[in-house]
Amino acid sequence: MTSKQPTARIRKSPEQVRSAVHQAVIDLLSAPDGAELTIPAIAQHAGVNHTSIYRRWGSREALLADVVTTRLERDSPLADTGTLRGDLTAWAEAGVASIRTPEGRLLVRAVALSMPSSADMQTERAQHFRRRLDSIERIRERATARGEHPPPLEQILDQLIAPLYLRAIFGIDPPATGYPDVLVDRLLASTGAPDTDQ
Amino acid sequence: MTSKQPTARIRKSPEQVRSAVHQAVIDLLSAPDGAELTIPAIAQHAGVNHTSIYRRWGSREALLADVVTTRLERDSPLADTGTLRGDLTAWAEAGVASIRTPEGRLLVRAVALSMPSSADMQTERAQHFRRRLDSIERIRERATARGEHPPPLEQILDQLIAPLYLRAIFGIDPPATGYPDVLVDRLLASTGAPDTDQ
Repeated sequence: MTSKQPTARIRKSPEQVRSAVHQAVIDLLSAPDGAELTIPAIAQHAGVNHTSIYRRWGSREALLADVVTTRLERDSPLADTGTLRGDLTAWAEAGVASIRTPEGRLLVRAVALSMPSSADMQTERAQHFRRRLDSIERIRERATARGEHPPPLEQILDQLIAPLYLRAIFGIDPPATGYPDVLVDRLLASTGAPDTDQ
Repeated sequence: MTSKQPTARIRKSPEQVRSAVHQAVIDLLSAPDGAELTIPAIAQHAGVNHTSIYRRWGSREALLADVVTTRLERDSPLADTGTLRGDLTAWAEAGVASIRTPEGRLLVRAVALSMPSSADMQTERAQHFRRRLDSIERIRERATARGEHPPPLEQILDQLIAPLYLRAIFGIDPPATGYPDVLVDRLLASTGAPDTDQ
């Protein structure tokens, strides 16, 4: 199907391979034909042998998960504002800012694409996603330590994360102003959680 | 890259081609390696020439959109319960039932994959999605005609559609009982829409 001998290939250090492969994923996601995101295509674009990719990451899904986690951790340091409402609003503001950029939307799309697609890998797919909810779990833990009563994780998933992810995946712009506050208001109003200051 | 001559191919009627190609999309989406959903792979699986697919559908995205729309229309006839709350709950119940099935989750995933991926196709992507909101628009129109005050489409997107789609895409099961009511309660509570009977 695909050449096993990429044409112009120079020996790269492991860190150069990682960097070139990550960039190739981002580039291919951005291409008009971005869905042809196969390991051979990524290898060719990165100028590495596709066996290096299989050896290092094991699968396309694991590679995409690595790219997304790396980028999101770099782009979204976690704010500690002192209140549950403040932390959730900061999280939502960072999310809204991110999905307003082409790269942010591509990353969310990559998260969706990185999910194992087989119906019987349902559990593994959910675990993939839950690992990306760590920042929300830390916000919840800090709130609980302060004596606040954060909504359950699943409710935050439904009311805060889902709208942002869906808009990113389907290219529906968030409202121009006030959207992070609207989402957090809806979330905290419907839980009966104490309405902390800020 | 790919053979232009699928091996065992029998001349098919246009309707047989359509049916075989639709089934090939569903089958490939279900496969462990479902993401390799290219037109040559679909053509090979369906036993048709890939040029037939390009001629008939134009692009992979248009083909996926056709598959999804056809299946969803077949699976989700629109209930008229007589109230906004009843119609929204029926819609949510059908959605929850659908994403509890492997095929339902695959279809939502196909919707996500069928979105044009290029960053500068944002508008076209949003239009793709909005065409699939027709059933929600009809629920809103009926409510308005009865003198009810339905929430804006974007709010229904955020609070009803997004949680279902995200759970389908990421394989997170909805709560075992009462979930459609929870979603509709949250949606109608936060709008100040009149709380109709049922």
